[in-house]
Amino acid sequence: MKILITGFEPFGGEAINPSWEAVRALPDIVAGADVIKLMIPVVFGQSAVVVRDAIIEHDPDVIISVGQAGGRFAVSPERIAINVDDGRIPDNAGNQPIDTPIREDGPAAYFSSLPVKAMVTAMRKAGIPAQVSNTAGTYVCNHIMYQILYLIGHEFPGRRGGFIHVPYSPQQVVNQPPQPSMGIDDMSTALEAGLEAVVAYTGKPDEHAVGGAVH
Amino acid sequence: MKILITGFEPFGGEAINPSWEAVRALPDIVAGADVIKLMIPVVFGQSAVVVRDAIIEHDPDVIISVGQAGGRFAVSPERIAINVDDGRIPDNAGNQPIDTPIREDGPAAYFSSLPVKAMVTAMRKAGIPAQVSNTAGTYVCNHIMYQILYLIGHEFPGRRGGFIHVPYSPQQVVNQPPQPSMGIDDMSTALEAGLEAVVAYTGKPDEHAVGGAVH
Amino acid sequence: MKILITGFEPFGGEAINPSWEAVRALPDIVAGADVIKLMIPVVFGQSAVVVRDAIIEHDPDVIISVGQAGGRFAVSPERIAINVDDGRIPDNAGNQPIDTPIREDGPAAYFSSLPVKAMVTAMRKAGIPAQVSNTAGTYVCNHIMYQILYLIGHEFPGRRGGFIHVPYSPQQVVNQPPQPSMGIDDMSTALEAGLEAVVAYTGKPDEHAVGGAVH
Amino acid sequence: MKILITGFEPFGGEAINPSWEAVRALPDIVAGADVIKLMIPVVFGQSAVVVRDAIIEHDPDVIISVGQAGGRFAVSPERIAINVDDGRIPDNAGNQPIDTPIREDGPAAYFSSLPVKAMVTAMRKAGIPAQVSNTAGTYVCNHIMYQILYLIGHEFPGRRGGFIHVPYSPQQVVNQPPQPSMGIDDMSTALEAGLEAVVAYTGKPDEHAVGGAVH
Repeated sequence: MKILITGFEPFGGEAINPSWEAVRALPDIVAGADVIKLMIPVVFGQSAVVVRDAIIEHDPDVIISVGQAGGRFAVSPERIAINVDDGRIPDNAGNQPIDTPIREDGPAAYFSSLPVKAMVTAMRKAGIPAQVSNTAGTYVCNHIMYQILYLIGHEFPGRRGGFIHVPYSPQQVVNQPPQPSMGIDDMSTALEAGLEAVVAYTGKPDEHAVGGAVH
Repeated sequence: MKILITGFEPFGGEAINPSWEAVRALPDIVAGADVIKLMIPVVFGQSAVVVRDAIIEHDPDVIISVGQAGGRFAVSPERIAINVDDGRIPDNAGNQPIDTPIREDGPAAYFSSLPVKAMVTAMRKAGIPAQVSNTAGTYVCNHIMYQILYLIGHEFPGRRGGFIHVPYSPQQVVNQPPQPSMGIDDMSTALEAGLEAVVAYTGKPDEHAVGGAVH
Repeated sequence: MKILITGFEPFGGEAINPSWEAVRALPDIVAGADVIKLMIPVVFGQSAVVVRDAIIEHDPDVIISVGQAGGRFAVSPERIAINVDDGRIPDNAGNQPIDTPIREDGPAAYFSSLPVKAMVTAMRKAGIPAQVSNTAGTYVCNHIMYQILYLIGHEFPGRRGGFIHVPYSPQQVVNQPPQPSMGIDDMSTALEAGLEAVVAYTGKPDEHAVGGAVH
Repeated sequence: MKILITGFEPFGGEAINPSWEAVRALPDIVAGADVIKLMIPVVFGQSAVVVRDAIIEHDPDVIISVGQAGGRFAVSPERIAINVDDGRIPDNAGNQPIDTPIREDGPAAYFSSLPVKAMVTAMRKAGIPAQVSNTAGTYVCNHIMYQILYLIGHEFPGRRGGFIHVPYSPQQVVNQPPQPSMGIDDMSTALEAGLEAVVAYTGKPDEHAVGGAVH
């Protein structure tokens, strides 16, 4: 099995992006699967071009994108991506779309095809705070998750895809108002546990576990 | 114009549900529109039966459901409802579905057909904290929003529908760990401002305003 | 009995200060006690001059200062004032002392002589979130609380004094990142309940109630 | 120079106490100073007996206690300890004092004799979120800080003493509602940086730096 996993370059004035730091610290083989790591730009549209090229080049079975969710407490596999770009800040190329569909011919949303409940269970067993998230926002993180699932649906059938958000790293919040953070090593531990669950649940339905949100 | 607006009965051990308290304090006419108020049960499935009956009875142009989002700081019009029931706690009838589609023949999600950006702007002008939310959770609130939009799509074309979350009331958090809350009167003020925006934007696209979420 | 209660003028770029708004909405008589309301400046030193003048003018039995604690969830009677000025931002006259004693000849701290536990109980019974706080910060709020208790100890024996923090009002957080807030009317309700407890506990020890902080 | 540094045993139903885990991971020598590590009980009174015995045994120049502050985002050197025990929960021996003075003959409070501003600066330079705290609570953490400073004042003149709070570790919050946490290794890094500042500022006043709290 082959897993393509991406992290983002820095954005919003940050010096690093913990998503890429955590991805690049992953082992090259997890649970027998080859792990291909790729840094992608924080740019609407262009991020998807880069991922599509990598899918063509590497022919992965699973495509996972990882992004920074400053302010979150836990590593959070995303349940769903929605068909809208709505930038609170411009992306790294200066684009700031407002309430624009990502794909005119796409559905309102795509559910992740990763076993998000099993991934959360595996991450917690590894000692790392984790929970299913029901929104990836409306910025480039949601954008690339939607694009990956759209590409799978339209060009690369049979693959699985999804997205995982990680918190700020400690270094990023040193000069900010009080904010949660998580060590890069702990993020990597969580990602590795998540990949193990992805491999283990190949061809199986997700774990039947309580993990919804009241709101 | 006629607006059907619902609030929920209490759940999760609470003595009141601020969503219904705020709804029933609304005036009977807002911006020239008749406002019909309805309390609905916190029950998967049954809540939609009650709303469907009320649509048939009252023939409203707009259907809005309001629910409690304990822990939120602001009144939040929801952008999207997703096709999944995933109960963290049982509903008031004891149902606790896990990762179950709401409608087998429904799309992954429905976007609100209310002008959520304009509603937020109006609520803030009225002095009340408000923001667009990109997840209504996976409990009965998301359920009823999805059902309303499904019903509009399948049985009641031409109507508009959506959902608004309100915080805890002060009384609810008195004996809890520190939690945000909002006075019932302020919630009602926000709802009234939101309804005014709904009326004002009839037949028009939503306000073009920054209001997305980075994650 | 006579109670002198102060609120602050706005500071830190805010248009209002909810502490003064809540104080001035108080009735003129609470539980049989005369309530004298006074707005004081957000200025180290000068705030204490104004309060001292008012004590001389009105000869109150109780002196309570009320201030804004942006970010707090609850109304919080303060347990203790400490002998240090340490400004994170300048005061309204441009002073920004760093780690400076308030009174060279004063003790490290003064405990409130108000029944803070009973006040919290009374506020909660009135339906308003409240809790004892163990720090009034190191800005003008802590400064005036310390000064009041120093003045009582040195010039005005037999009086009681203390401090109550209130959250932001809803209007103040409309254009901020998510923040807790509380309606001015609810703050006033809490203050009135607190004053009733102050009157009721005259000459008695504070209520014996759990209300400490683990940290 | 010799530094005695203590961490606590677990309490409140936790399996570990990160304060002890972080302390015991410290090097035995920091900036040329000998570091003596001691686990102490979460018990009012008895904790001070254990620390006093260790002071007599080891004759340290500096005594620092470290404790867990579940819910905090940053490592926080404490500015002040106050003369009150007010347990929100019982200690590990079942004691739950309410509003009881720690020392009948002690002052209302003791300021830390550690350079808390310089310690925060050093911790941040090491990449770890840190801030001065103005309350150590009213439980065993505040108790031992007060006792250390009382003992220095009454029996062991010329020593310096203080307290540092650390957040939850990630493992502790895995099955809790969303909570901030910090890796044990990052806590140790912060403590080591703090000790370096303590050594460097021997005989000097604390760094003149902005670091107060508005409330």
